[in-house]
Amino acid sequence: MKTPQGRALHTDLYQLTMMQTYVKQGLHHRRGVFDMFFRELPFGNGYAVFAGLQHILDYVTGLEFSPEDLEYLKKKGFSKEFRDYLMDFRFTGDIYSVSEGEIIFPNEPVVTVVATIMEAMLIETALLNIFNHETLIATKASRIKQVVGSKPIAEFGARRGHGLDASLYGSRAAYIGGFDGTSLVAAGKAFDIPIVGTMSHAFIQSFPDELSAFMAYGRENAGNVVLLVDTYNTLKSGIPNVIAAAGSLAAQGITVDAVRLDSGDLAYLSKESRRLLDDAGFREIKILASNDLDENLIMELEMQGAQIDRYAVGTKLITAYDQPALGGVYKLVGIEQDGEIIPKIKISDDIKKIVNPGRKQLYRIINPYTQKAEADYLTCHDENFPLSGRNLVLFDPIDIWKRKTVKTYEAIPLHRQVVTKGKPCLPPVSLEEIRSYAATALNRFWSEHKRKTNPQDYPLDLSVQLWNTKNQLISEIRSHYED
Amino acid sequence: MKTPQGRALHTDLYQLTMMQTYVKQGLHHRRGVFDMFFRELPFGNGYAVFAGLQHILDYVTGLEFSPEDLEYLKKKGFSKEFRDYLMDFRFTGDIYSVSEGEIIFPNEPVVTVVATIMEAMLIETALLNIFNHETLIATKASRIKQVVGSKPIAEFGARRGHGLDASLYGSRAAYIGGFDGTSLVAAGKAFDIPIVGTMSHAFIQSFPDELSAFMAYGRENAGNVVLLVDTYNTLKSGIPNVIAAAGSLAAQGITVDAVRLDSGDLAYLSKESRRLLDDAGFREIKILASNDLDENLIMELEMQGAQIDRYAVGTKLITAYDQPALGGVYKLVGIEQDGEIIPKIKISDDIKKIVNPGRKQLYRIINPYTQKAEADYLTCHDENFPLSGRNLVLFDPIDIWKRKTVKTYEAIPLHRQVVTKGKPCLPPVSLEEIRSYAATALNRFWSEHKRKTNPQDYPLDLSVQLWNTKNQLISEIRSHYED
Repeated sequence: MKTPQGRALHTDLYQLTMMQTYVKQGLHHRRGVFDMFFRELPFGNGYAVFAGLQHILDYVTGLEFSPEDLEYLKKKGFSKEFRDYLMDFRFTGDIYSVSEGEIIFPNEPVVTVVATIMEAMLIETALLNIFNHETLIATKASRIKQVVGSKPIAEFGARRGHGLDASLYGSRAAYIGGFDGTSLVAAGKAFDIPIVGTMSHAFIQSFPDELSAFMAYGRENAGNVVLLVDTYNTLKSGIPNVIAAAGSLAAQGITVDAVRLDSGDLAYLSKESRRLLDDAGFREIKILASNDLDENLIMELEMQGAQIDRYAVGTKLITAYDQPALGGVYKLVGIEQDGEIIPKIKISDDIKKIVNPGRKQLYRIINPYTQKAEADYLTCHDENFPLSGRNLVLFDPIDIWKRKTVKTYEAIPLHRQVVTKGKPCLPPVSLEEIRSYAATALNRFWSEHKRKTNPQDYPLDLSVQLWNTKNQLISEIRSHYED
Repeated sequence: MKTPQGRALHTDLYQLTMMQTYVKQGLHHRRGVFDMFFRELPFGNGYAVFAGLQHILDYVTGLEFSPEDLEYLKKKGFSKEFRDYLMDFRFTGDIYSVSEGEIIFPNEPVVTVVATIMEAMLIETALLNIFNHETLIATKASRIKQVVGSKPIAEFGARRGHGLDASLYGSRAAYIGGFDGTSLVAAGKAFDIPIVGTMSHAFIQSFPDELSAFMAYGRENAGNVVLLVDTYNTLKSGIPNVIAAAGSLAAQGITVDAVRLDSGDLAYLSKESRRLLDDAGFREIKILASNDLDENLIMELEMQGAQIDRYAVGTKLITAYDQPALGGVYKLVGIEQDGEIIPKIKISDDIKKIVNPGRKQLYRIINPYTQKAEADYLTCHDENFPLSGRNLVLFDPIDIWKRKTVKTYEAIPLHRQVVTKGKPCLPPVSLEEIRSYAATALNRFWSEHKRKTNPQDYPLDLSVQLWNTKNQLISEIRSHYED
């Protein structure tokens, strides 16, 4: 789905005032390199799932200023010279990115923009917004999916997302993260995600009694009959009426697919419901549970042996409730000087916050015997790092005495060029492919990195050349400002 | 700003399967009454600020199914009869609502929809989504605004909202809640919100040194010169360079408006920066602070006597970080039977979760001497409640022995009809008016309800007639299901 045009002003004011300054100073042709990354994993999770690339590409390649945009900027005092520049504005730079669905870690350059500094600045706000949102939701979905295993799980958060588009793109991100369907019809249409649904309490209340509501719904929705059983009383009314309805509907050749529990003690109610359904001979009717679930509650339910076959998760997923911001950033790492890109950093008192300078390459180091990932490895862009080899020494970039040697490795390059001179340069990828890519990518990690609580840190190591470049720049700046 | 068309499928699948059932059963002309409300205040706040009404009206009145929508539904197995019905679908019902910007409380029917049950169901998902999101952000903004008092405060969250529209409508909601501006240019254009901005670290890094960056920016942005001082070292480099730049720019008739602190110990740095600026004779240069601020950090800064003149808040506001979902619901409270609307409730084990049945009127009870609000008061729709009077007995609807008598009162009716037969029926209201309405409305509350921590509960009381109606319905249902 293409993003609607007209997003050019979806940027922070300072991007435009800075751009205007560059234009007036004649500095607008200088190129810069910006890395987009996050610094800390959300939810205490051991990994993140990158989502949002397609949305970013649609945004970047559709970027232009409308006459109304320029009129507004005129009203706000922007100069004619600058507005003339914007009139013909298109993004003409290059973008490198890890694949959508890839497993990513803190401080890894997920997306790298190489463009005039003007163009790179204009797109910062929207790129971060999309990356922060969609990666956050995909990661939360994947985290929840780890707990449910192979049981189907659906996203039911349409009414609680932060606006209509948050639910729409959130559904897509959840699907990438491993969810199996969504209740949101618009997301089904836009992204070809399977849509699933049940019925509401209001529907049942609108009939004279629960049984007639079940019968009416069953007759008209053969093939997708999921009956909500907690409108009056789950065990005394809901389940007995399901049993009655299932019997009558069976005579008409219609199967009741599942019941939905949406309140109360889901562990107890699911076991009792299962027993009642089984005793009545309806072993094939599944039990779906919902009601403010998240990975913690689902794990508790599973530990209690709840008889739940399918889950639906809404609010806690679609808002990333326990940490609703990823905190992704977009930092200058290089700038053109005399026709050449030179690496840049910004000093911080916190060494972990200092960026890795210059254009870089990112690799996943795989042990060929286990096929599991050992570490990610960041090199300077022009290093000739062999894609397989022996005795690769990895060291912690901060506590450098922490070392390990990988005896034999294979390296998967994670970056690909996705935009060349403003045009997308890879064939389109379907959402199904992205989702399946994410599952395959996650499979390369030991379960220690995937567990819910206190997962093992996965290392991002720097090549010696990159580490030296960085520390040299740090020394230069420190010597300048600490005298 | 009109919402783009094509939102008809922004609904949960079950709304459509239920609607199809009604159509096939010939029940689609029955009218229902639905109340939208929330059950608990977010953030431990003492009140909420209603936002999203204009967005809801744009959505409802623009609702129609496109040929592509219908094609998608065909593919998903919906019947021709139902698709034919949808082809001509328009919302034709009535909507009653409190004004946008109104101060609202748990269990108050904020929006009431009276329409065919079909129409009322279709719009549920989007109405809740918009209400939940925008009211949440307006409430968070108002909560933060309480702490900063009259100091200007801007919304800087564009890069951290949940998608582009979350930032756009979030900016608008923040403005309603009392924020003074936004960094998001698109929000400025769409809603005529003042836009504000500074500069980024990357901008400064792109110059040979900090001073030349300040000079270039100052020269080209006269009237809005806010200089970011923490790129290298706030006190050793940033502020001294501001002082140097301010001197040179003054010679060119350009004033430095403010400096921006964006990291480190904001209390200490603001005091030292103030001292340095004052000593250099730049008492009029203001200090703006940002960096993951929220109402708690701002209150701490104020308590420490930080020399901060303006604040900017991003992530914590635009994601409603500490509670990113309002939890609003949309419940059937009445349904047509033999041509008449009869009240409906759904029983819950938690008495607080049982809705107030039927169509209702909502009043704010004002003490005419203090002009402060004493309680909100909910009556049946057809009660003839006098808009002023004496000796009004208010009782807690759950602990009914808790009573108080208001000797003299004036009652402000909070509901107005906003849609008649599918058409908006009130003149449009500007965002400025909504914002100012919110400020006036909030002014009617004692500070005990507005404080940040443990605010005093504000009561919503029921009229005797409504209380009786509700309890009679509860008894009827209980007697049916508890035998």
